[in-house]
Amino acid sequence: MIISANDPKRKTWLEVSNDSDFPIQNIPFGVFITKDDVITIGTRIGNYAIDLSALQMLGYFKGIELTDDVFLQDTLNDFISNGKKTWREVRNRIADIFDYNNDTLKNNAKHREAVIFDMSEVEMQLPVYIGDYTDFYSSKEHATNVGIMFRDPENALMPNWLHIPVGYHGRSSTIVPSGVNVKRPVGQTLPKGEKTPVFGPSQRVDFELETGFITTDANLLGENILVDDAEEHIFGMVLLNDWSARDIQTWEYVPLGPFLAKNFATSISPWIISIDALEPFRVASPEQNPLPLPYLQQKGNKTFDINLEVYLKPENSTEKLICTSNFKYLYWTMSQQLAHHTINGCKINSGDLMGSGTISGKDPSSFGSMLELAWAGSKPIEMPDGSTRSFIHDYDTVTMKGYCQNDEVRIGFGEVSSMLLPASVKI
Amino acid sequence: MIISANDPKRKTWLEVSNDSDFPIQNIPFGVFITKDDVITIGTRIGNYAIDLSALQMLGYFKGIELTDDVFLQDTLNDFISNGKKTWREVRNRIADIFDYNNDTLKNNAKHREAVIFDMSEVEMQLPVYIGDYTDFYSSKEHATNVGIMFRDPENALMPNWLHIPVGYHGRSSTIVPSGVNVKRPVGQTLPKGEKTPVFGPSQRVDFELETGFITTDANLLGENILVDDAEEHIFGMVLLNDWSARDIQTWEYVPLGPFLAKNFATSISPWIISIDALEPFRVASPEQNPLPLPYLQQKGNKTFDINLEVYLKPENSTEKLICTSNFKYLYWTMSQQLAHHTINGCKINSGDLMGSGTISGKDPSSFGSMLELAWAGSKPIEMPDGSTRSFIHDYDTVTMKGYCQNDEVRIGFGEVSSMLLPASVKI
Repeated sequence: MIISANDPKRKTWLEVSNDSDFPIQNIPFGVFITKDDVITIGTRIGNYAIDLSALQMLGYFKGIELTDDVFLQDTLNDFISNGKKTWREVRNRIADIFDYNNDTLKNNAKHREAVIFDMSEVEMQLPVYIGDYTDFYSSKEHATNVGIMFRDPENALMPNWLHIPVGYHGRSSTIVPSGVNVKRPVGQTLPKGEKTPVFGPSQRVDFELETGFITTDANLLGENILVDDAEEHIFGMVLLNDWSARDIQTWEYVPLGPFLAKNFATSISPWIISIDALEPFRVASPEQNPLPLPYLQQKGNKTFDINLEVYLKPENSTEKLICTSNFKYLYWTMSQQLAHHTINGCKINSGDLMGSGTISGKDPSSFGSMLELAWAGSKPIEMPDGSTRSFIHDYDTVTMKGYCQNDEVRIGFGEVSSMLLPASVKI
Repeated sequence: MIISANDPKRKTWLEVSNDSDFPIQNIPFGVFITKDDVITIGTRIGNYAIDLSALQMLGYFKGIELTDDVFLQDTLNDFISNGKKTWREVRNRIADIFDYNNDTLKNNAKHREAVIFDMSEVEMQLPVYIGDYTDFYSSKEHATNVGIMFRDPENALMPNWLHIPVGYHGRSSTIVPSGVNVKRPVGQTLPKGEKTPVFGPSQRVDFELETGFITTDANLLGENILVDDAEEHIFGMVLLNDWSARDIQTWEYVPLGPFLAKNFATSISPWIISIDALEPFRVASPEQNPLPLPYLQQKGNKTFDINLEVYLKPENSTEKLICTSNFKYLYWTMSQQLAHHTINGCKINSGDLMGSGTISGKDPSSFGSMLELAWAGSKPIEMPDGSTRSFIHDYDTVTMKGYCQNDEVRIGFGEVSSMLLPASVKI
């Protein structure tokens, strides 16, 4: 099937600036509430939010096999369950509707009014109901940095790391969309040199620069997904901030892994960028040595060249770009993660979220967490207002951006942005 | 409010054997499909399944504030969201309807036919939609046994264990009700003395004897639950088999915890036993030394005297009782688990499941896993058919039972039972 929506020469009759993350070649999927308090599935072109349920009711998706209310929903889960063929048909059709040479909607003022909103008029929601959330740990540079700081510099990588796309389960109930602020967590920590823990707000709240991918119903309980089939079951990608409390984590995580250090909040960007839209930016993933076991051996280019940035903004001050990384640095691909996740028969559902793990590169400017950027507090970051940061302060705003760019087109993710609020707890 | 349903003198006009797990004093909640293919919420008395949606439609819940379709659902989540006052009113009313001295339903043959089924005529389902599943690690004896076997016998308990009800996130998508058989997982393991992993079916499939509790909507994101309020947010308890692949676990679990070793399946018993029904069996939990931090200090008796048993049955042979344990052995209580889980503001939803962790006692006959019972393969268990077991074989059936018993009443959980099927995987 042809991905006509990707045609880099296509122009739209909507006004879109050249540096927009959302040209007509992107066509992401999301969920928003309109000014009339209607919740709907939509897409975005430039700074316009487009109501897909309204488009469907007006007949613009005629010929595509869809249930009547597939877009008049508060999550994308049912649409995602329709499978890749349908996602592609809908995305191609949207490109046609807004194509510069197509006058049908363009010349129908009444329809335009029902379908097109300014982004400032809508409120973005979580795009999917997330049944299960898994977080991987797939950056070799990040795993090495953490190993050097917390364990043994001589044996920074765990023996299993080069064989397994290491992952663990996260908490679905605390995943929030961009714009929802996050409260500093309270809990137990062990002061250095002490044997008894103390109680109080975390002193080491951190971000982790990640992406996440959203799956469709992919298998039955007891069935696995082949590494070369995995992309068929990936609906798209988002930016993800895996908020972390390093001091809580250090005390709690042996032997069963991070728990309260992570599950107070995970923030994601609201627009899901399809794998189809990312197609022009497909590149090879890093060479793997040793060769992984056969079920993890993949053919072809399985990753994408996605530029990633993190900005930190203190209250009443300007923001600073503190990290520039790239999705392609990851050692393990999404296909390998999904093949590994299901090799034991674990069932994957529509709307499940899989985080990449912190995306760090080789250069210190590409490290994807404050822990690494300020090297556990030994190299604080200087901010424009003269203050310094080893971890996140109250009222700091963390913003992550992502985009692909070549000579012809820019496909962006928008942003995931949230402010850290002070701790509060009743005891 | 009076828990009249607990009156130990109450008799029912239904036929119930003296040793039944489900006397009229129990009144658990579950979901089943009737012979007419209707899915409904129900309860159980003796060997009768009782259709609560039929009872409601016939007017038997008049006076209790309930939405019309609260029982005509395929999960209990909405009913649980109604809160403890409603759960208690409904349970008390059911006791009244089936009371020996109440003739209303007893004398109405047409109503009886619509409401009461033989257990053999219905098919039990998962009782709740489980958004998030957390598994704790709250038996001091189990954590010590594992520490001795896998880490350092001199320092078997981790330094954090006596301060934290250690827990981690599990996978919701692979939780199945009793009767659904489980496939032996395939994956990576590291043979002893080797440096390179091998691929194949797990050779060390194990059960873990646990209970689980089901929560209601308890807090908003960023709010915590006080330890002494926690029971208000617990709907009830089930038996739980935390299927585990020890060889996969050993290779994968450092540093982020168990993943594929656990998420291939978790089995639960289908009837949720209310905290109210367990009230006569409330006992003190083990003394805690050192005293935990204030947010974990609880008043009064916060655990229950629940006898637990595990039976192992090879194919074509008789079953053997291999473990006799008790819920009251657990060091950390459900109240402490819930207070800890939310101290960082983690949101708890209706239908969330919290596993206790393996429930081992001091005596080797009370160890709650094959790993401990056969001491990592060094003391194989002899079976009635002459074979031995260090771990679970293909076509073995693992059955867990639980019950409370005093001079007046027996409150049982029924069972969670499933067979291990051979591995199968495509690569």
